[in-house]
Amino acid sequence: MKAEQLEAGEANSKQSTSSSTQRVLLINRGLSVMDLVLRIIGAVGSLGSAVAMGTTDQTLPSFIQFIQFNAQYNDIPMFTFFVIANSMVCAYLGLSLPMSIFHIIRSSAAINSRIILVIFDTVMMALLTAGASAAAAIVYLAHNGNASANWFAFCQQFNSFCERTSGSLIGSFGGILVFMLLIITSAVAISRR
Amino acid sequence: MKAEQLEAGEANSKQSTSSSTQRVLLINRGLSVMDLVLRIIGAVGSLGSAVAMGTTDQTLPSFIQFIQFNAQYNDIPMFTFFVIANSMVCAYLGLSLPMSIFHIIRSSAAINSRIILVIFDTVMMALLTAGASAAAAIVYLAHNGNASANWFAFCQQFNSFCERTSGSLIGSFGGILVFMLLIITSAVAISRR
Repeated sequence: MKAEQLEAGEANSKQSTSSSTQRVLLINRGLSVMDLVLRIIGAVGSLGSAVAMGTTDQTLPSFIQFIQFNAQYNDIPMFTFFVIANSMVCAYLGLSLPMSIFHIIRSSAAINSRIILVIFDTVMMALLTAGASAAAAIVYLAHNGNASANWFAFCQQFNSFCERTSGSLIGSFGGILVFMLLIITSAVAISRR
Repeated sequence: MKAEQLEAGEANSKQSTSSSTQRVLLINRGLSVMDLVLRIIGAVGSLGSAVAMGTTDQTLPSFIQFIQFNAQYNDIPMFTFFVIANSMVCAYLGLSLPMSIFHIIRSSAAINSRIILVIFDTVMMALLTAGASAAAAIVYLAHNGNASANWFAFCQQFNSFCERTSGSLIGSFGGILVFMLLIITSAVAISRR
């Protein structure tokens, strides 16, 4: 009788251990799927930003034939940096997708590859944040100018150029949010082996 | 004879397990000490940046009595943001020191508190990067101006103001590097329970 009870107890504890292991595996798989979805969102956002900024071009109508007022993104070095940073981030996120899929398939192991992803994610987040906020500083100046420095708000003339560059910031700042979530997700996933 | 061998083998395996546990503990303690040192370096760097930018003030000599040309950091909103971001980061790093010391004492446990630190580190890194690169964009414009936007390089007049603001970026960019290392260190420490 006692032996039977003991056996039953052992079986129970084994069952609960295996069910808790399964729960951890399920949570880990959920985190890996979230990682993949976030990477796709981030890649689309940064690609959109790069394309929106990179194709910005406005020529003002002029009555004089040989003088044309033209505004392009590469007139301002920070906008060029913005396009480069967003393109690099988009390429990195695209390249990291296979690793993210590998983490879904093997959600229990793969600690080292997760740490490598955290390292690259951190570097890419710094790059994207730097590009986005440098461009945001210029967009702010373009809208409001600065009286102390005698900098003129050129948005009054180049209206569509300004709207386009302002809009292209959205995808980039969304990308920063995605990277924050990616790093936190990875930290939680690493802790839940 | 056989039993003795078995016992010896068990003792050996026990010894090797305990020594490997000790090694993990030692590595974890080393990572925690590195975390503390990095936080102190980051706090000093961001404090220095905030103070250097916040006390920048230059008045040009003028022959006319009632007109004075004066440059202060709060003439430009991005510099104000830079000071606020650096102050916040410095305060955060100071407040996180007790937690970092707690991790040195209890280096084996404390997974949850490490994850909380990773979350705040990530947010603060984004804040610091945004502040530093927005200020860097303005410093670049102040040095070089922009011909397309008709923005004048005011460094030709406000020389000491410009040097001071440029120099104050160093501590901030050092702080970004510190945050990158902090996040990576935390990820490694979490993986090595």
